Order: sequence, then structure tokens, then C-alpha cells
Amino acid sequence: MKMLMNVPESVVGDALRGMAAAHPDLVVDVEGRVVVRRDAPVAGKVALVSGGGSGHEPLHGGFVGPGMLDAACPGEVFTSPVPDQMVRAAAAVDSGKGVLFLVKNYTGDVLNFQMAAELAEDEGVQVASVLVNDDVAVVDSTFTAGRRGTGATLFVEKLAGAAAEEGQPLERVEALARQVVENSRSFGVALSSCTTPSKGTPSFDLPAGELEFGVGIHGEPGRERRPMMTSREIADASVGAILDDWQPRGPVLALVNGMGATPLLELYGFNAEVQRVLAERGVPVARTLVGNYVTSLDMAGCSVTLCQADEETLRLWDAPVQTPGLRWGR
Amino acid sequence: MKMLMNVPESVVGDALRGMAAAHPDLVVDVEGRVVVRRDAPVAGKVALVSGGGSGHEPLHGGFVGPGMLDAACPGEVFTSPVPDQMVRAAAAVDSGKGVLFLVKNYTGDVLNFQMAAELAEDEGVQVASVLVNDDVAVVDSTFTAGRRGTGATLFVEKLAGAAAEEGQPLERVEALARQVVENSRSFGVALSSCTTPSKGTPSFDLPAGELEFGVGIHGEPGRERRPMMTSREIADASVGAILDDWQPRGPVLALVNGMGATPLLELYGFNAEVQRVLAERGVPVARTLVGNYVTSLDMAGCSVTLCQADEETLRLWDAPVQTPGLRWGR
Repeated sequence: MKMLMNVPESVVGDALRGMAAAHPDLVVDVEGRVVVRRDAPVAGKVALVSGGGSGHEPLHGGFVGPGMLDAACPGEVFTSPVPDQMVRAAAAVDSGKGVLFLVKNYTGDVLNFQMAAELAEDEGVQVASVLVNDDVAVVDSTFTAGRRGTGATLFVEKLAGAAAEEGQPLERVEALARQVVENSRSFGVALSSCTTPSKGTPSFDLPAGELEFGVGIHGEPGRERRPMMTSREIADASVGAILDDWQPRGPVLALVNGMGATPLLELYGFNAEVQRVLAERGVPVARTLVGNYVTSLDMAGCSVTLCQADEETLRLWDAPVQTPGLRWGR
Repeated sequence: MKMLMNVPESVVGDALRGMAAAHPDLVVDVEGRVVVRRDAPVAGKVALVSGGGSGHEPLHGGFVGPGMLDAACPGEVFTSPVPDQMVRAAAAVDSGKGVLFLVKNYTGDVLNFQMAAELAEDEGVQVASVLVNDDVAVVDSTFTAGRRGTGATLFVEKLAGAAAEEGQPLERVEALARQVVENSRSFGVALSSCTTPSKGTPSFDLPAGELEFGVGIHGEPGRERRPMMTSREIADASVGAILDDWQPRGPVLALVNGMGATPLLELYGFNAEVQRVLAERGVPVARTLVGNYVTSLDMAGCSVTLCQADEETLRLWDAPVQTPGLRWGR
């Protein structure tokens, strides 16, 4: 695979320089690998910090801004950021009201955010952490004990971000984030492998006539290889896998997500099938977001994330957000 | 190439059904192939209509909404929409203040929009048309006499859309759109071919170690095949090709655009190089937009579009816009 890059070693730094140039409302510490909203710390506000390996853009750096994250810590491609980054981020955004770490469930991220929480607390910052583990495909995987954290991260960051922006205290924002995780489920499918810059060749071998059913966002194996399926069949099987695991009570937010290389034309067509299955299964959909949001470098494929939504969830979802990746007004 | 679809024949219709489900603020006529903002016709406002072959999403349907287009007419993949669609769109959005057709310079689109303008005027709708032809790569191409219309379409739709939203009359909005075209230039590069649903195999053959320099948004040939280049070299050559053709007087808007399958991580890295070249060449950048906006199905690659910006341009660029693909508040 050809990549638009200079050398593999500079991919993340180059991207951060490019982000800094495009988004003057962010402060990007390219050396220190931290992306912070320019008006941080925001007085009286709980601060949200997330992060993880790079290669999932716009997650997480693209979700920094009013109404969502206060800071993000990008690691190397598919590699956890280090505790130093998280401590620096926490110090930059803490207004005295405390910091909430939002952590996708991968062993490296979990350990590093844990160590960072201890270090930040030693420096007098109050820290709470919430683990995102929404992927129903497999239990235990290449980089994970338990379930992987994938698409629900967007819902947690948006909804907890809106609650924090409203001035809710740390324990409330933390409880809300935890509730969003509990009320969310995801399932993904790969039509092609991804290619990491350092390796330069596909991370895994996926024959022409097959797909990876239940894939993770680093190309980790899913449940099984299956012969290539239609959009209709993928929607039936993906939504089916989620609803076999869990039945939402009431309406849902739906994220119909691309893995990075799947064009919008295909994602919208897939969304039509996802909506059909949900209607057939009696699940009302309150809001739908379609696009490449929680990606896996240049992987082709898609995932579905559902989040059970009550009135407060909808209010927080509709609240204004101003980030590079997610943006709407009043 | 594997595609996320049912059958090639239903790709555009399926995508429109998926758009309708995701965007309740749009009226999507799936059969009639027209996407209209729900509050159209807007009293006292000039209406903007664009369209073209599908496969360039979010262009054009994703740019329908307050502050941008009033309606879009999607054709089949890489195939011009027909005059009937445009006439229906014009009738749906005309408030009596006239309709502006924004047309990318491809022979089919030009002829069909021309015929539609005559038919709509027969029905009493005042119509003006502006042709977008910003691609400096080649003169005359597979589907085009003259220069191709590519990334500048986004600038024309946003800036003319903002002017129309302010209540400017048809002749002013038309003159502004024409001026934006005159003040914009683009250049693109393909790292991989695209695959149309009906063919199912790459549209052109691009060897592993080469790129297509000056490619069009349907995979039309560019200036030449070149050995694979770094991000730095591509930025030097692409921006160089634009500035060899034309020197902006004063600051520019910059669109650093992905062709569909190139992930944001790479596009941001490319943006860093584009900004470097522009700084070296003495071109100040007032605003930058990075992402997959004017795409070519699943093609990997990128393009740069520059638009010379005066104070009015910046005001119109910053004006609120609420569309699926481009969205910001006050």
C-alpha cells in the first residue's frame, strides 16, 4: 500500500503539525504530543481527557473543543500514549474541578492512564476514569482483556463533554460516562486490512472473496472469516450480533461508522440497511451519525454502534459542539 | 476491490435512502433523485442548485442546507444527472428570486444543466449558471473541454451559499460565484485507482511504485505517471503546479482534500507540507479545511485547492453553515 507520508517515524508528528495549522482554536504541542482546546482551563468546568494510539482519526484529537474533550493524547500509530502525556494534559486543562480520563479498553492504555491518574493526583489534580468497552464481537483480543473499546467512545466523549460544558460536577459527569458505556454496544466488519506506516504492508491477509466479521479497530481478529456479504447481509449480521447481546429499552443513537477507506456513498447505503434492520427488530432510532469517525488507518469496512438514549441523552447529544471532527451549533 | 453494497444498480438509491434516514432536515426524493433542504423555498432568497455524478460525496448532496445549497441532483456514479432532475430541483427551491446553477465543467453536466435552464425558464423560473473549472492539471480531458471542475466547487457552494443566505440578489450571487471560480485553482494526485460499482475492478492500472500526477476526480489521466513521491514532494509539486499557473494576490483559503480512501492522519501530515510550501512561496493562508470533501469513490490520493480571499470572502466563509458535510455555528 502506498501512503501519503514522508517517513514512517514522522507520521504522527507531521499530522499534529498539520492539525495545528488547520485549527487555530486548538493548542497542539507537537513535541509533547498533547492537543488542548485553546481556552483551557475553562473556569468551573470538569475537564475531559482522552487519548490512545494514532490511526483512528478524527478520534481523539479531532474531538477536542467546546462541548467535547478538553485535551487528547495521541500515541504512536496503534500504540498507547505514555503517562507523561496524560499528566501534562491534565495539568493543562484542570480548572480545579477535576479531570475525567476516558479510556478505551486496551491493556496499554488502561495501564498508562492508571499510572497517569496516580501521578496527576500526586500533583493535586482530582482524577476519575471511565473505561469504554463496547465491542460485542469477542471477549479478550490481541491487545485487550475483556471487550474492546471502539465506536462508543464517540458517544461517551460527546455526551460527557456536553454534561461537563453545562457545569455538572465530576461525580455526575463520571456517572453519566459510565452509564453511556453500559448503554452502548458495537460491532465491526473489515473488507480490507489496514497498513501501518512502519510495516508498509497489510497488517493481516484478507483474501479477495472474504471479510473479517467482528474485526477490531487495529485489525485484530474478529469472530471469523466469512465469504463476502452484501450490505444488507452485513447489516443483518452486525445489528443482529449487537441485539443478541443486549436489547435497548427505548430509542437509540446510531453511529454508522467507516473504518477509514470506505467512502460515504457506501456508508450511506449501509445506513439504509442498518435502519431497516432496526425497524424490523423494533428499535426506534432517535439520531443517526454516518461517516468515518473511529477509524483504523486505511482499512475498508464499517461498524455499527448503538447507544440507548433517554431524554437527557438526546439533550446532551443535541447540545452545541465545536471540534474539528464533530461540529454543530445551537 | 470489495465494496459495501448490495448490487451495483442500487448503489445511488440505497445511499439516498440512507441519507434520508440520517438527515431529517433534508427532503430526499429517492425516486426523483433530488436532495432539497427541508425549509425550501426560503422566502426572499436566491436558491442554489448543483449536482453531478455520484461518487464524490459529501459533494453535492452533503452540502445541502442553510448557508450552502438549496438542492442537489445526484446522477448515477460518475454520470451526469438529467435535466428533469434539475428542473424539479429548481421548481422545489425557487422563491421567486431566481435560481443559480453551479456546474462542474464536464461535458454531460454542462449540456444537461443548459437544457434544464431553458426548461426551467420556460416554466417562469429565472436561472443563471456558473461553470466551475479550477483544475490546472490539464486542458481538455476524458469528460471535459477546457479545465475540469474539482475542489473549488466547495468554495463556490459555500461562499455563494452564504451570500444567498444574506439575501443578496441573483446577479450579485452569480457575480460572486464567478469571481470565486476565477480566484481558485486546484491540483490532484492519485495513489490508487478508484473502482466503480458497475465495473468492480480498478478504473485504471496504477503500478505499486507510481502515482498519477494531476489526476481528475473520476480517475481521468493527469499530466503523467511519476515514481512514488513523499508527502513533501507531492506538496511541492502540487502547490508548485498551481502557483506556476497563477499567483494569488493576498491571503488564500486552502482546501487540503482527500480523494476518498486516504485517512485523516495522512491528510493532516500532507497539510503540514502544503502549509510549508505556501509559507516558502510567500502565500499567506487565512483558513484551512482538511478532509475528504470532493472525492472519487475509493481512490487514495489528495488534492489542493486555493482560493484568493478578500475580507468579504472571509466573512462569507465564516458565516454559519448547517449541512451534513460542512457545519459550523455562529
